[in-house]
Amino acid sequence: MTYCVGIMTHEGLVLGSDSRTNSGIDMVNACRKMHTFVKEGSRVLVLLTSGSLSLSQSVVTLLRREFEQEAGLAAAPTMYDAARTIGTQIRNLAALDRESLERDHFHFNINVLLGGQIQGGPPALYLIYPQGNPLMATPDSPFIQIGESKYGRPILDRGVRYHETSLEEAAKYALISFDSTMRSNATVGPPIDLLTYVADEFAIKRYRRFEEGAPDLKQIRRRWEQSLRRAVRDLPPIKFSPSDPLPE
Amino acid sequence: MTYCVGIMTHEGLVLGSDSRTNSGIDMVNACRKMHTFVKEGSRVLVLLTSGSLSLSQSVVTLLRREFEQEAGLAAAPTMYDAARTIGTQIRNLAALDRESLERDHFHFNINVLLGGQIQGGPPALYLIYPQGNPLMATPDSPFIQIGESKYGRPILDRGVRYHETSLEEAAKYALISFDSTMRSNATVGPPIDLLTYVADEFAIKRYRRFEEGAPDLKQIRRRWEQSLRRAVRDLPPIKFSPSDPLPE
Repeated sequence: MTYCVGIMTHEGLVLGSDSRTNSGIDMVNACRKMHTFVKEGSRVLVLLTSGSLSLSQSVVTLLRREFEQEAGLAAAPTMYDAARTIGTQIRNLAALDRESLERDHFHFNINVLLGGQIQGGPPALYLIYPQGNPLMATPDSPFIQIGESKYGRPILDRGVRYHETSLEEAAKYALISFDSTMRSNATVGPPIDLLTYVADEFAIKRYRRFEEGAPDLKQIRRRWEQSLRRAVRDLPPIKFSPSDPLPE
Repeated sequence: MTYCVGIMTHEGLVLGSDSRTNSGIDMVNACRKMHTFVKEGSRVLVLLTSGSLSLSQSVVTLLRREFEQEAGLAAAPTMYDAARTIGTQIRNLAALDRESLERDHFHFNINVLLGGQIQGGPPALYLIYPQGNPLMATPDSPFIQIGESKYGRPILDRGVRYHETSLEEAAKYALISFDSTMRSNATVGPPIDLLTYVADEFAIKRYRRFEEGAPDLKQIRRRWEQSLRRAVRDLPPIKFSPSDPLPE
């Protein structure tokens, strides 16, 4: 399983991915799901992938080949075009692999989160589906998750607001969202790749790979759980109602 | 969709269920999923159901008929036997309905949470599967969820401890778990039926039906979100690492 999340706020972007990959429960390995395509000063594109590792490796390989020839993600004039470039490569890959996979009852399963900024436009965050079509994050829906998304969603729903949440806070929400997911699902796991991108920087200046057992990650978990317990204790007591008829 | 949860602590039990039921997104109705079978002074049994409403209604009807004849749940000598009684009725129902459902590609889908106490034994919490077999909550795994369980799980994972959590705290955790689920999934919804059962009471003394927009439920949500935001702000800042090589 995989968990990746992108958050867009008025200050910029937060992007994070786990590194657990498995084919069935017996074979658990680590693998990066974050990929960066950067031309300092003019464009920063970060891809997070979920689904079949074979398919996401192929898509990144095809995109990297184009990028190194100054085409594809190196040439896309806007973030929308960059998302379409990824969609096109997903469709190219579908033409290569989909029929063979489906013959043996595998799904053609790949989702890509794209976050970044291309000079001339604002930062943007897209999800590109296995069919190749893109979905954009908006101020009303300022985060997108892929993979095992449910455990880590409530904290984002409660906390992340496009116009109000600072980038530093958004990064903390992302880490807590990862921690919640890893606690409830053993097939999502460290290392966690996390970066924040400040609008108009056109370079990646704040990146961190949190290894398993990183002391500050453990400290954040400990303090977070202490805060939650205190918050529950401080809630007003629940009022029960002797007049409500018991359900038959 | 449905969300039901049972929590077992050293002090007793918390049981809660939502009331949303739907066949597809166009037809959303309210329906109780909590059912009580009580003989004051000697046994309290609370059932929470998920899955097909038709099936859960049938199982409860069959169990109620037995109960009123002083058999089945009225006569089971232990909570394990009560769980087996429910499993037997699920299997009886499978014999009635399963083939007809599967012919039209419906699953035989029903899960029952059973919480309560029968004189002579301790309080217990069971999940009875669609196949009729029971699973028991233990001090190591002191809560069981059925239905749309993922959104509401992280707060329980972080907070609920069999030996430490008071029943009043456990009820708050349950309500927050409901609130998290309803916020992230529109097909889980109020009214919320919630009760707490103190060991050896052999009566239901604390029950409440939280209607949509109940003022104290809204207050709990508001205070909870304020506490979460404050807790995130108070976390130490994330240390990024200029030396970590950027992922290609």
